[in-house]
Amino acid sequence: MRNYKLTTAYDGTNYQGWQKQSLTAATIQGILEQSLSEVLKYPVEIHGSGRTDAGVHAWGQIADVKLSGRVDETLFLQQVNEVLPEDIKITKMELVKGGFHARLSAKSKSYVYRIDNREKGNVFTRRYCYHYPKFLNITAMKEAASYLTGTHDFSAFTDKKDEKTAVRSIYNIVIEKKEGQIEITYHGSGFLYHMVRILTGTLMEVGNGSRRPMDMEVLLQEKKRTATGLLAPACGLCLKEVYYDEKRSVS
Amino acid sequence: MRNYKLTTAYDGTNYQGWQKQSLTAATIQGILEQSLSEVLKYPVEIHGSGRTDAGVHAWGQIADVKLSGRVDETLFLQQVNEVLPEDIKITKMELVKGGFHARLSAKSKSYVYRIDNREKGNVFTRRYCYHYPKFLNITAMKEAASYLTGTHDFSAFTDKKDEKTAVRSIYNIVIEKKEGQIEITYHGSGFLYHMVRILTGTLMEVGNGSRRPMDMEVLLQEKKRTATGLLAPACGLCLKEVYYDEKRSVS
Repeated sequence: MRNYKLTTAYDGTNYQGWQKQSLTAATIQGILEQSLSEVLKYPVEIHGSGRTDAGVHAWGQIADVKLSGRVDETLFLQQVNEVLPEDIKITKMELVKGGFHARLSAKSKSYVYRIDNREKGNVFTRRYCYHYPKFLNITAMKEAASYLTGTHDFSAFTDKKDEKTAVRSIYNIVIEKKEGQIEITYHGSGFLYHMVRILTGTLMEVGNGSRRPMDMEVLLQEKKRTATGLLAPACGLCLKEVYYDEKRSVS
Repeated sequence: MRNYKLTTAYDGTNYQGWQKQSLTAATIQGILEQSLSEVLKYPVEIHGSGRTDAGVHAWGQIADVKLSGRVDETLFLQQVNEVLPEDIKITKMELVKGGFHARLSAKSKSYVYRIDNREKGNVFTRRYCYHYPKFLNITAMKEAASYLTGTHDFSAFTDKKDEKTAVRSIYNIVIEKKEGQIEITYHGSGFLYHMVRILTGTLMEVGNGSRRPMDMEVLLQEKKRTATGLLAPACGLCLKEVYYDEKRSVS
C-alpha cells in the first residue's frame, strides 16, 4: 500500500460539508471518494484534516488516501479531475510516508473569512463572501483580535462541548481591507467547531461599535457562548492551508 | 421625464447576453427592465452602452433610463436590487441631463480578460476566467500588444462586417500576472463585435509560441479574419468601465 497526501480545493456552496453522511447527501468527502474509486476501479476511503461545515469552502484542504499500488500521479490526477464536478478539484498529489495522517499529523491551520463590505454586494464574490454593507472599524477589530491571539480556553467561541479541552493557540489574526473587501485570516494550532465563524461574528460586532475591543478578555475568561457574537455565515469561510512537519513527506 | 444613468454589474454566466431578445430568453437588459418596471409599477425601457455577448460579465456596464418623475434614489435602488436576481445588480444611480445617452455619449471603454494560468483550474474563479494551463510568455504578449495599441483598422479582429468603419483606437493594453492569473486590460475608444476576444486569442497564440509579436503588424495590414487567432471563450471577458465626459452629469 502506498500512502498519498492530496491537496483539494472546493467551492462548498452546493455541498453538505466535508464529512460523508448518508448516501444521498452531497458531501465533498463522498464525491472525492466516488471519483477516486471510479478511476482506480476499486473502492478507496480518504481522511480529511478535519471537517468543514455545509457551505464552507477550501483552498488547501488536505486528505490522505492509501492506494494498493503506485500510480502515475500526473496522469491519475488528470483523470480524477475530469471525473470530479467543476467545483471540487484535487490540486496536488504527493507520495508520503506510511505514518502520514491528514488529521493527526497536522501542525496548524489557517482559515480566511471574507466580508464584502461594499454598499452594493459584488456579484462576482457573492458565493465566497458575507455581504455586510455597514461600516466596520478595522482599527477596533485589530485591537480586539490582539486579545484573542495566544493560547486561551475558547469555550465561549464554540457551539459544541464534547472536546476534551477548549484550549487552543491562535498564532495570529490578520485583518486587511482591499477594495471594499475585508479579509480576516486566522492561523492557529487548531480550531473548535464553529470557532472561526464565532470569532468573526464577535470581531464584526466590535467593528460595528456594539462591543469594545477590551471586552474580548472578559469573554475568554467567562467562557459563556451566550456572551459571544453571532455565528458568521458559512459562505464567507475558507480553509486556506493545513501545515505539516515537512520531514514527513517522501518523494 | 427625468433621465438617469445606471451603473450595473452582472455575472453573465447564466444569461444570453445584454440585448433583449424573445420573451423567453434570459437577457440582462430584459431582466433589468422587468425589475425596474415591477418597482415603478409602469413599464420602462433601458439602453445600454453597448451589448455584451452571452456569458460575458460586466463590472460597470452603463444604461440610461427615463423615469416619469424623480425617485428617492437610495430607496429605489434598494427595492430594485431586492427584486433582481443575485447575479445582476445596479450599483449606482445618477440623475443626468436629458441629453445623456449611454451609448452615444460614451467616450471610451475598458474590458478585462482573465486567464486562469494555473495547472489545475481555480475552483473559485472558474466562472470568470478562461482556464488555460499551458505556459504563456508574458513578455512576448506585451511586445505583441504594443503593435496593437494605437489607431488601426481592426477588420481582422472582428466577426461582423456591417460597421461603417473598422477603425478604432486602443489607448493601452495592460498585461499582468498575479498568482497564477493573467489579466489583460484593454482601454479604447470602442470595440468591434468579438474584438476583445479575438485580440486575446491572438495574444495567447503569441504567448504559447505559435506566433511572433511582430506578426501583429501584418495581421493589421492584411485585414483577414482567417489569419487572426481563436475567439477566446466568453467566460473570461468582463466589461470593466465605460467612460463619459464628466460635464454631462447633473446632481
